[in-house]
Amino acid sequence: MFVSGVLEGETMDTGTGPLKKETLVEQAIKRMERMIETEAWPLGSRIPPEPELVQLFGVSRNSIREAVKSLIHVGVLEARQGDGTYVCSKSSLNAVLCNQFRKADDGEILEVRRCLEREIARLASKRRTNGDILEMQNWLRLTEEAYCMGDYDAYVQNDYRFHLAIASATHNRLMISLYDSIAESVQGTVGASIGRRVNQFVETMRIHKDLLGAIERQEEDRAANHVEELLSLMRRTLDS
Amino acid sequence: MFVSGVLEGETMDTGTGPLKKETLVEQAIKRMERMIETEAWPLGSRIPPEPELVQLFGVSRNSIREAVKSLIHVGVLEARQGDGTYVCSKSSLNAVLCNQFRKADDGEILEVRRCLEREIARLASKRRTNGDILEMQNWLRLTEEAYCMGDYDAYVQNDYRFHLAIASATHNRLMISLYDSIAESVQGTVGASIGRRVNQFVETMRIHKDLLGAIERQEEDRAANHVEELLSLMRRTLDS
Repeated sequence: MFVSGVLEGETMDTGTGPLKKETLVEQAIKRMERMIETEAWPLGSRIPPEPELVQLFGVSRNSIREAVKSLIHVGVLEARQGDGTYVCSKSSLNAVLCNQFRKADDGEILEVRRCLEREIARLASKRRTNGDILEMQNWLRLTEEAYCMGDYDAYVQNDYRFHLAIASATHNRLMISLYDSIAESVQGTVGASIGRRVNQFVETMRIHKDLLGAIERQEEDRAANHVEELLSLMRRTLDS
Repeated sequence: MFVSGVLEGETMDTGTGPLKKETLVEQAIKRMERMIETEAWPLGSRIPPEPELVQLFGVSRNSIREAVKSLIHVGVLEARQGDGTYVCSKSSLNAVLCNQFRKADDGEILEVRRCLEREIARLASKRRTNGDILEMQNWLRLTEEAYCMGDYDAYVQNDYRFHLAIASATHNRLMISLYDSIAESVQGTVGASIGRRVNQFVETMRIHKDLLGAIERQEEDRAANHVEELLSLMRRTLDS
């Protein structure tokens, strides 16, 4: 399951000079970030214990410890007393943005989302490939199926994948990673609260299908309006 | 110049248990972040050497070292071999976003800016107080003065403050900190390149004044269009 291997530069780690050690720690951090990004270490999972990480990355226990501490400080990992270390965010950007989101109130968050998600719908309408549309259709179908089977976790997850597929259709990597960070912060709460109410589910699915249709037909304004509609529904759900 | 004092919890640091030490490191990180945020340690400055930090924060050398390393990993501080440690970003959010910006190309960045800055102009038009307008007028005047005196560093700095005053008029903290992160990443390059050309300076000032006027009269659409105009000018400058 874990990609084993030795970090570049390990053979150079003969001295104890701070510069070389720093580089190994940096490399260990990057490797761990990649494990998380590729979901070899999924969000919410416990990472292997220190001795295993030493083996896995081929660096000293001290370097591993420092790399882990760094990822804890930035909010990507979380140490749970007497239990182990868990993945609690998918990237540094997500962790740092989540932290900003925690300081903001619902109205502030909704305004930023509205701004980004409307623009994403517009750009996706302009640039979507046929492959992008198939991807969106697939996740939307899976979202509906998960809801009908009463699997709310899968519902929230698939709903997220549907929206991520829209963001991906912008083909703007910065937009995609901003969207992804925001989605991570708001996911659980909003998705789940809507998912559990049948009326709102039906309405949500209707808007999602309209949104997908508008993106497919490359109708920018209409796509942006459907995003607006979706966010209004969320706001009503949060208020009720 | 430096706020001296001892961290809460220092008296509890009698054991060597990892939990308590962790907490002191966290506190040291927060204190350092506050020094940077309040510009007691300005962007680009060298932070005091380790022994001074030990005095300043009243924690052990190990804790200081760990806190500094953490801020280096996230990109807020930078260690320069044989010189010292410098402030290279104003916050973790800025550092992490700058990092994302470095991976993006100019077109991607401009799209994200366009989206956020148009919305900021709209929200500022809606919500600006008289105090917000005075703030904008003040920085715009200082921007013009700095240019006329040939002080380009002050020009770039004041231009940034002008735009930050617009973002502040949204009264949305999340929007403000996203704007600030983006401004930090793009500042030097774009601002300076425009500032050094007289024609473009005149055009830039004209658009800035129109933008301020539209925000003052609460004309949302017009304000958003002036942002568009400003970004087009920047794009032309970057292309030329």
